[in-house]
Amino acid sequence: MDLPKHVYANLVRQALAEDLGPGDITSALTIAASASGSGRFIAKAAGVICGWPVVQEVFRQLNPSIFLDIDRPDGSTVKPGDGLAVISGPVRDLLSGERVALNFLQHLSGVATATKKLTDLIRDYPGVRLVDTRKTIPGLRALQKYAVRVGGGYNHRFNLADAVMIKDNHLAACGGISATVAKVRSMLPHTMKIEVEVETEEQVREALAAQVDIIMLDNMTPALMAEMVRLIDGRALVEASGNVSAETIRAVAATGVDLISVGSLTHSVKALDISLRLL
Amino acid sequence: MDLPKHVYANLVRQALAEDLGPGDITSALTIAASASGSGRFIAKAAGVICGWPVVQEVFRQLNPSIFLDIDRPDGSTVKPGDGLAVISGPVRDLLSGERVALNFLQHLSGVATATKKLTDLIRDYPGVRLVDTRKTIPGLRALQKYAVRVGGGYNHRFNLADAVMIKDNHLAACGGISATVAKVRSMLPHTMKIEVEVETEEQVREALAAQVDIIMLDNMTPALMAEMVRLIDGRALVEASGNVSAETIRAVAATGVDLISVGSLTHSVKALDISLRLL
Amino acid sequence: MDLPKHVYANLVRQALAEDLGPGDITSALTIAASASGSGRFIAKAAGVICGWPVVQEVFRQLNPSIFLDIDRPDGSTVKPGDGLAVISGPVRDLLSGERVALNFLQHLSGVATATKKLTDLIRDYPGVRLVDTRKTIPGLRALQKYAVRVGGGYNHRFNLADAVMIKDNHLAACGGISATVAKVRSMLPHTMKIEVEVETEEQVREALAAQVDIIMLDNMTPALMAEMVRLIDGRALVEASGNVSAETIRAVAATGVDLISVGSLTHSVKALDISLRLL
Amino acid sequence: MDLPKHVYANLVRQALAEDLGPGDITSALTIAASASGSGRFIAKAAGVICGWPVVQEVFRQLNPSIFLDIDRPDGSTVKPGDGLAVISGPVRDLLSGERVALNFLQHLSGVATATKKLTDLIRDYPGVRLVDTRKTIPGLRALQKYAVRVGGGYNHRFNLADAVMIKDNHLAACGGISATVAKVRSMLPHTMKIEVEVETEEQVREALAAQVDIIMLDNMTPALMAEMVRLIDGRALVEASGNVSAETIRAVAATGVDLISVGSLTHSVKALDISLRLL
Amino acid sequence: MDLPKHVYANLVRQALAEDLGPGDITSALTIAASASGSGRFIAKAAGVICGWPVVQEVFRQLNPSIFLDIDRPDGSTVKPGDGLAVISGPVRDLLSGERVALNFLQHLSGVATATKKLTDLIRDYPGVRLVDTRKTIPGLRALQKYAVRVGGGYNHRFNLADAVMIKDNHLAACGGISATVAKVRSMLPHTMKIEVEVETEEQVREALAAQVDIIMLDNMTPALMAEMVRLIDGRALVEASGNVSAETIRAVAATGVDLISVGSLTHSVKALDISLRLL
Amino acid sequence: MDLPKHVYANLVRQALAEDLGPGDITSALTIAASASGSGRFIAKAAGVICGWPVVQEVFRQLNPSIFLDIDRPDGSTVKPGDGLAVISGPVRDLLSGERVALNFLQHLSGVATATKKLTDLIRDYPGVRLVDTRKTIPGLRALQKYAVRVGGGYNHRFNLADAVMIKDNHLAACGGISATVAKVRSMLPHTMKIEVEVETEEQVREALAAQVDIIMLDNMTPALMAEMVRLIDGRALVEASGNVSAETIRAVAATGVDLISVGSLTHSVKALDISLRLL
Repeated sequence: MDLPKHVYANLVRQALAEDLGPGDITSALTIAASASGSGRFIAKAAGVICGWPVVQEVFRQLNPSIFLDIDRPDGSTVKPGDGLAVISGPVRDLLSGERVALNFLQHLSGVATATKKLTDLIRDYPGVRLVDTRKTIPGLRALQKYAVRVGGGYNHRFNLADAVMIKDNHLAACGGISATVAKVRSMLPHTMKIEVEVETEEQVREALAAQVDIIMLDNMTPALMAEMVRLIDGRALVEASGNVSAETIRAVAATGVDLISVGSLTHSVKALDISLRLL
Repeated sequence: MDLPKHVYANLVRQALAEDLGPGDITSALTIAASASGSGRFIAKAAGVICGWPVVQEVFRQLNPSIFLDIDRPDGSTVKPGDGLAVISGPVRDLLSGERVALNFLQHLSGVATATKKLTDLIRDYPGVRLVDTRKTIPGLRALQKYAVRVGGGYNHRFNLADAVMIKDNHLAACGGISATVAKVRSMLPHTMKIEVEVETEEQVREALAAQVDIIMLDNMTPALMAEMVRLIDGRALVEASGNVSAETIRAVAATGVDLISVGSLTHSVKALDISLRLL
Repeated sequence: MDLPKHVYANLVRQALAEDLGPGDITSALTIAASASGSGRFIAKAAGVICGWPVVQEVFRQLNPSIFLDIDRPDGSTVKPGDGLAVISGPVRDLLSGERVALNFLQHLSGVATATKKLTDLIRDYPGVRLVDTRKTIPGLRALQKYAVRVGGGYNHRFNLADAVMIKDNHLAACGGISATVAKVRSMLPHTMKIEVEVETEEQVREALAAQVDIIMLDNMTPALMAEMVRLIDGRALVEASGNVSAETIRAVAATGVDLISVGSLTHSVKALDISLRLL
Repeated sequence: MDLPKHVYANLVRQALAEDLGPGDITSALTIAASASGSGRFIAKAAGVICGWPVVQEVFRQLNPSIFLDIDRPDGSTVKPGDGLAVISGPVRDLLSGERVALNFLQHLSGVATATKKLTDLIRDYPGVRLVDTRKTIPGLRALQKYAVRVGGGYNHRFNLADAVMIKDNHLAACGGISATVAKVRSMLPHTMKIEVEVETEEQVREALAAQVDIIMLDNMTPALMAEMVRLIDGRALVEASGNVSAETIRAVAATGVDLISVGSLTHSVKALDISLRLL
Repeated sequence: MDLPKHVYANLVRQALAEDLGPGDITSALTIAASASGSGRFIAKAAGVICGWPVVQEVFRQLNPSIFLDIDRPDGSTVKPGDGLAVISGPVRDLLSGERVALNFLQHLSGVATATKKLTDLIRDYPGVRLVDTRKTIPGLRALQKYAVRVGGGYNHRFNLADAVMIKDNHLAACGGISATVAKVRSMLPHTMKIEVEVETEEQVREALAAQVDIIMLDNMTPALMAEMVRLIDGRALVEASGNVSAETIRAVAATGVDLISVGSLTHSVKALDISLRLL
Repeated sequence: MDLPKHVYANLVRQALAEDLGPGDITSALTIAASASGSGRFIAKAAGVICGWPVVQEVFRQLNPSIFLDIDRPDGSTVKPGDGLAVISGPVRDLLSGERVALNFLQHLSGVATATKKLTDLIRDYPGVRLVDTRKTIPGLRALQKYAVRVGGGYNHRFNLADAVMIKDNHLAACGGISATVAKVRSMLPHTMKIEVEVETEEQVREALAAQVDIIMLDNMTPALMAEMVRLIDGRALVEASGNVSAETIRAVAATGVDLISVGSLTHSVKALDISLRLL
């Protein structure tokens, strides 16, 4: 799935207003309005690049005459020193947009890079998908989920409206998995799947009896997960969840689960270091 | 400086729309509209709490009758297991707002916690301030800068309009520090200060001659920084910049600079783990 | 699923601005600012009432002191002359909001009434669901889909992002059902289902082979539909589509399909006649 | 009066956001980003076409490179099978915008078609105008009123601010037609007209004495209307109102009224069936 | 006509964002969050007060607990030193809102005061109305027109959509008054009036022949105006226009015109001096 | 500092919506959609022109094909009768945008003209700057401050967030200048300056002791101001404030202050008379 412009055009507008306020006073007082030039985006760390459509929109909103020539498109793996793209146009506008463009590009490349790092670790488990969560930065969810895809991961549900995820609080209110799933199914749109979060083998059995589509094993040990995978035996998709990290992901993948969801992909992002150097 | 509501009310609105879409289908199908309850925010890691005004706004927008009783206000240092606040109201709305509230709270507490960690390291250098940068998450700048203050840090300029920061590109266009500062000063509002980014001793001397307010030493070694501090000798504020980390910050502080700016405070945030447990 | 306020608060704001412009000049010039009163919403035709949360928001935005006392809540079946609700407050504001409130209430009650009429016709086919489509009035989709639920119907997917629906154009581009489904499945979030629109028995067989979740029989005769239902035999949900009306719906339901989607529920709405009479 | 773009640009933006959500997942996964193509809008029912400026804006917002070549402009009378326009551009964007474009086009063509049907019925009463009301779909008033004009009808007042319309509630508050009109006239902008809604001959006489500009005869029989028209005798414009339909409109027109207002033109719209077929 | 809140709520929001930016740093650093107090609005010049509803909204948006106690409501004539209102609440919020509140209050009181000055001059011509124009400050039209009413003036049309005003450019395009009016009348909503701007006696005669509702005499001498008024003789309303000032308005009023429009009421406003003094 | 488009694009949108409502009915009914033409902006009074970027945006939003050819750019001094610019495009759109364009242009040229008048008066005091205040028209601050610069003046702080201005209320709350400045300095971003408003010599001495950056002399006589300037002796910038006018500004400048702030530049603007004449 690509990234439709309406998803980020408004966010770019807000980010520019936030950073420009009534105007970039330094550039206005030092750079001639007529000066044209160009600059190169350069990687200063190794990682996966993500965010050019947003960078393009940043500069388009500042000045439609700015031209971005991308050498390393979204998804490219880069190393320190690599030239990524060249941007050309009025120098004032290049300087005024620099920070906002980099803030987007570095953050999204950070998400893609972290995703790639984990997917590389489980490359020999082709049946296992790394997926994201709803633990995203407010306002940036669609962008972050795009970056997860660019990094080789997959998306979990986008919001509270496009799939059912039954957790302990819902179970408590309805009286158990069987009753809850029945209640949900009676009104649920037929296009939607039902996922249940479970913590015990007994709950797994109940979930299977209720014929849910997806079972999320919450914070189980790898050993228990493996046992549950055998128990479920293909009758539902199995998602592993709970503080999975680079240290533990291979052990989790080895249990045979279908999906591993990792919140830190989007809630604890380390920006990828990228600079824009005027030529 | 506190956090005026108009700064985040709209962002909260967008975050809720982003997460709720046309509605929280799971809660709507499983929780009775009439069910009331309460939940406790609990720290699952050690850190500094930040973000209650935003959490309050999240739930206020969902349902004005929800009540938030805060035990550990913004700025509190907490340890795993600590109860932070109790929230009470219709269970459906508590569940619908949970994720958005936590996404804000965990992110901002992450910023405050990272800030606190660095300020603690330089506590015995009372003349040195840790400051943030414009390397922020698009849309969240005012919130992140508030979190830096909550964590014991200080704010650098908010945007491109409220102070002058002369960098190499501006110098190149105007022909050196002296000419650039003169040009800027001729039109600059009298309420604004001028900061220049320098890389060499020669530039420091030029900046002093031009009587700038603040000199930013970019990517210098601690030894060179210390020398520049002696050279400047109080005639301008001195800011150290360039990939300062927990490992290096004490050495930088020891050079005698007035300010240490750290981009990672806001561009590479590790969320603080916090949960909301229904009672 | 209920109707979260953020879904309609902005639409109400726009509708009031649209109808009030710079102000209700007639009421301002004829009604004393201090005059209070009340009015009764009265059904002038038989149908199903839907829209009170929106009516409440209309008057709340005009004047928070207005009170709405609902006798016949959403989903009530009413007959001409029935009193539905009493609204009390400043007369000027009651008159200024009357038209906007009625425009919402009459339209949504019209949707619910049409839905109820069709669901009543197939009441003796309990396994068959009447569902809506994306053929909605721009800006009103969430409200219209709520009204369909209130009328006893069910919702199809809300938008292009929350389920896959493969139509002839997609098949043409990818080279047949089997190839298209494989391509989709390779990237599709695991929470999403795949529906395919088919026109021939051969396509049904292909769809079954590709193990899609839902098969939409497009514009087939009831006889052919029945045959396809037997062929599918529970291996996928079956949706009937194509100009189903009150005249034809029972014949379609008798074929054994699981779902009947009807665009006219939302694209060709006859408003339910309701008036607001001041007391 | 034509249709200024600022009236619908924002509505189109909302409609696209409503239908696309975070993205058209089916097209993104099945159609190559580079694939170009074209499609033809085809009438599937007889009627009057209305809405091309809005369709153009829908596709322009998705992709400015899309080209719309209109064969049958707004106001054209078409029959089933007629080709209406050809649209060309990236196939993904054509498919992503199809539903929103059709939802607008079908609705507005429905309004124009219903209007045309009624104006045709009274074509031999050239002095009688068919006019719309404020009973419109929230958010779509300017578009619907444009469609009424395209269908050969005329517009009544646009909102509560651009003309005075005195109804029974205003009369009750001020103490009769004479007092109410006097009060209104004392402050009313001189550019505005005064219309009074009346139900009896006595009220007509009072309205004439108060020299109002327009008298609306509410729910009178054709016989009584004709009598009132004779009584008024050109001293005010006369508007007939109250559930006028195709069955009754000729009898109403024959009474000699100047205007016949029909709410169903806009509150109970039957969409005109139109499809977009990729070539 | 009063002033509906939806007309200014958004403007107040923008004005506060404009003045507060990320926060009132001086008040935040000097005033305790818990400090409560009150302040008095005091007139420092003679004039007519206008704008309390907007002032109230300014403080309501900052803090709903602030209370405004108005002694001299909109329309009051005040002299220097008069206490106008007392405002009470958190001191920080009072100080943060002071400037925005005064900017509105001083501007609108300036409009009302200028209007009052001119209406006082023509008080002995009770048949003559002072009216405003569309020469308003962008974004403030509804507020300024309200202030004109508060000052004793009347409103001309609000915008280009609520009355027809035919000027020379329209006449040139259509071929004279007679042809233009006929063309307009053929499509014009029946609720709207037609005004024509004329410069010569010949044009006045044409306008009368075309039976327009209002004739605007543009930049005529009082003597010629008086002659035209006699010629028109009540067959149309007569509006005088063209740089009318305090020096000339009585001579214009004496000509017998019905309306005198004055652009400077809203395009060249002298703020009324008002201060807010903390108690 | 130039004028970034994001600062006024939204204001232009609102101004057009305010003036056009659902459409310019007169132009739509009298001007053929196909008619092209051009018009000339002509000065009808002497002054300084300001506002072309906004005028350009007004017409661009109406119709991107309109072309504006500027003869006398922002900052030009003009006399009555001077041609300023020629605008070409569809006549309907030229007429529809005329009033909004002129409202902006006349207002901003009025600000620039008033500024120029005062700066001319103090031209022989090159060390003295005329500066604006926060007493601006709500929503137009950035535009008005741009016009002040165009007229030869300088900007004071833009909003409450970009500099500290300590007034009597802050002093009262904190206990004097020394304590207040100390408190402010302890948290203030290092990029910000501190200004204190003083009324007595004693306060000036306290401010000097506290080493503030700027001292504002509020409503002092020229004689006292001159004495204070000697006392301050370059240790802080000195700003004169308080109802400075054309009559008094030279006397104030002669005192040796650095800055003279004048609220009337923006709060009491006399529009510059400019017309748009179709060719």
